[in-house]
Amino acid sequence: MTDRTLKVGLLGCGTVGGGVVRLLSHNADQLTARIGAKLQIQRVLVRRPDAPRPEECRASWITTDPEAVLADPAIDLVVEVMGGEQPAKGYLERAMLAGKGVVSANKLLLAKHGPALLETAAQQSVDLAFEAAVGGGIPVIRTLREALTGDSVVSVHAILNGTCNYILTRMRSEGASFESILADAQKLGYAEADPSTDVDGHDAAHKLVVLSMLAFGAAVDVSRVHVEGIREVDDVDFRFAERFDFNIKHLAIGRRQGEALELRVHPAMVPTSSVLANINDVLNGVYLQGRALGPCLLVGRGAGELPTAVSVVSDLVDVARARLANVSGWTTRQIQPVPRRLVALDELDTRYYLRFDVADDPGVLGHIASALGSRGVSVEQMVQDGRAVTRDQAVPILIISHRCREGSVRAAINAVAGASFLKRPPRLMRIEDI
Amino acid sequence: MTDRTLKVGLLGCGTVGGGVVRLLSHNADQLTARIGAKLQIQRVLVRRPDAPRPEECRASWITTDPEAVLADPAIDLVVEVMGGEQPAKGYLERAMLAGKGVVSANKLLLAKHGPALLETAAQQSVDLAFEAAVGGGIPVIRTLREALTGDSVVSVHAILNGTCNYILTRMRSEGASFESILADAQKLGYAEADPSTDVDGHDAAHKLVVLSMLAFGAAVDVSRVHVEGIREVDDVDFRFAERFDFNIKHLAIGRRQGEALELRVHPAMVPTSSVLANINDVLNGVYLQGRALGPCLLVGRGAGELPTAVSVVSDLVDVARARLANVSGWTTRQIQPVPRRLVALDELDTRYYLRFDVADDPGVLGHIASALGSRGVSVEQMVQDGRAVTRDQAVPILIISHRCREGSVRAAINAVAGASFLKRPPRLMRIEDI
Repeated sequence: MTDRTLKVGLLGCGTVGGGVVRLLSHNADQLTARIGAKLQIQRVLVRRPDAPRPEECRASWITTDPEAVLADPAIDLVVEVMGGEQPAKGYLERAMLAGKGVVSANKLLLAKHGPALLETAAQQSVDLAFEAAVGGGIPVIRTLREALTGDSVVSVHAILNGTCNYILTRMRSEGASFESILADAQKLGYAEADPSTDVDGHDAAHKLVVLSMLAFGAAVDVSRVHVEGIREVDDVDFRFAERFDFNIKHLAIGRRQGEALELRVHPAMVPTSSVLANINDVLNGVYLQGRALGPCLLVGRGAGELPTAVSVVSDLVDVARARLANVSGWTTRQIQPVPRRLVALDELDTRYYLRFDVADDPGVLGHIASALGSRGVSVEQMVQDGRAVTRDQAVPILIISHRCREGSVRAAINAVAGASFLKRPPRLMRIEDI
Repeated sequence: MTDRTLKVGLLGCGTVGGGVVRLLSHNADQLTARIGAKLQIQRVLVRRPDAPRPEECRASWITTDPEAVLADPAIDLVVEVMGGEQPAKGYLERAMLAGKGVVSANKLLLAKHGPALLETAAQQSVDLAFEAAVGGGIPVIRTLREALTGDSVVSVHAILNGTCNYILTRMRSEGASFESILADAQKLGYAEADPSTDVDGHDAAHKLVVLSMLAFGAAVDVSRVHVEGIREVDDVDFRFAERFDFNIKHLAIGRRQGEALELRVHPAMVPTSSVLANINDVLNGVYLQGRALGPCLLVGRGAGELPTAVSVVSDLVDVARARLANVSGWTTRQIQPVPRRLVALDELDTRYYLRFDVADDPGVLGHIASALGSRGVSVEQMVQDGRAVTRDQAVPILIISHRCREGSVRAAINAVAGASFLKRPPRLMRIEDI
């Protein structure tokens, strides 16, 4: 059996691609035993043939011609680690149409075109695997696909963006502002020069859409997901969060509501005793609730050369084994996401943290309390903190609500939004009791 | 393809077995789609045919005759959820010799006879799957077997016994003694009438041996694993632990040391900021360190009808799919544990927490410090707590050592063991800096 060789074409050889080359080389014997055939890299498509590569990457593999990978019938398996929407999408489609099994680490591509790519895979009876697209080295796709196969997922609460988690962790521990920590994170290489994809929440939203295909069988247009980033998180909110025993985390949340689905990405208050509250720095975490399984938390490195490459290689092994067993496409065909209705934000039912920075005038507290009360928003805790007066003489009024409809809370906020006593727009943050 | 049916025989129908019956019934369509064939229960072997069963369990399935399962050629897959060493072992062997695929949730059996059973499976080209044997619903076996296939595991630190974790969690939060919490846990059903398998650490040791087959490819006689339970954990140690920012957890630890292996089960001090420190109550947690992957934490319910049944069903799906694809035995054959040398306890190199309860006499502190110092044990922190005097007028001296050989620490303890100033035997606890 071990005389057989499966040939691999790599599309891209950046950070993750380099890791894949290294793992395939260093663990060759172990992989051969596990698969029952050798995995051998045949071609590596790159844009810049002169860029530095890991020493395990042979010069003879390097090509700048996509045809050298896509049109070579000897290549059985294609690994796409180039990122971006095009030409990656076209390459993957051509590879599948040529009957090749494919592995992709491309969250953007999967989020935007996952259902169509899965359909192509099903039609061609080839496998499309993408563990590395979400949570780097965390085996979350595998867990959803395999471990929970006899169960159904009720909800997902996940920390999916390492940059956001790193910035929030430092804002909390250092009491510093978003801007100052971001600048430092950029210097240290934890944030991109253009950080918007990460800090505005789009990266997490893409990953949530990919998770939702597996967890809820849902095909969702990413533009329909409610997304908030962390730019608006104020360092004072960390201080107030601590007073109420909360931490602030940037969460991607999915939850079944009958046939509909709640999908949202935003900063949230979580109890400090929650399992997600203590996942810090660049770590990612996915907290699943299964109907039968109950809670299940997976934590690990969400990015980085080797952790992500471990996931790519585990996918390669699966796809290779299915190919040898002549059952290519079996696994992939089970993922058949269908469109789902999304729950409107106003329909959300949770607790809320509200901050009103106001002038210290008589009647202000009553005004705010009435606006909430008259819309059915019941107050669980209210603190007016006279010691926390800001430079512009604003006094913060902090409110923790009982569970209520978000529409009611927003109506109350709108009702006071024009009031002259407001020093700045009111701040709302959802509380996730996990 | 969905005209095909795979017939399942259940050995045992207690808590987990009942959960399997229910999941197979409730998720039948989903499982059929996933497998490409129906899973149909054919026979359920029980000891007491009149005992209550879930309503999904048909009366016609029930039998007290093992031959009705083992000798029926129509049965493709056998699920062993009866527990215990015999007759479970004989039944599983017979099922495999008859060419049936088998799934077991039996940690005792796997720990004692895993290598032999895996060999039988390999010879017969059938699959033997056992996700449910460790960590209930946590997909740890799958993660080790599949997700880490391109990597190697450096170490495992795990909370594997829910009863121990529950008792320690309550001892800490209530400041109560082991005996009082155990008695209450027995009343509440969180501890068995005879709790020794759990609280003396044997259950965790069995699970560690099973994990080690996958994580380190090691075949280990469970009697060679160093095992300590939690009976000796004193409630005062929680108070002292807090002072040094530690929590006390009952850990099962495995670590590669070259070709040798560290395997041990004992209470340990872990930093309160550690991911394991905050896994409480009956939850289990497995913290893996992969060479390439880095850290990976899996947390969930380690026991219970449905969580464990989810794992059994996920195994059933794998074994069924492999059978339909004519690749039975492929996955199982990759697990080929071989004997490994175990590192002697004296060779351990870590930090230690020591407690000496002594008479408040001059010279005592010097005596203890000299005993440690002369054996190369360097003290990081030492506290003599005059306020914590016990009823017998003992004053605790608490020591946190720097990293050192355990043999040296034990030699120092032995050197003072006979001293008249000692009010009771010195207490040693390992510190795990994870």
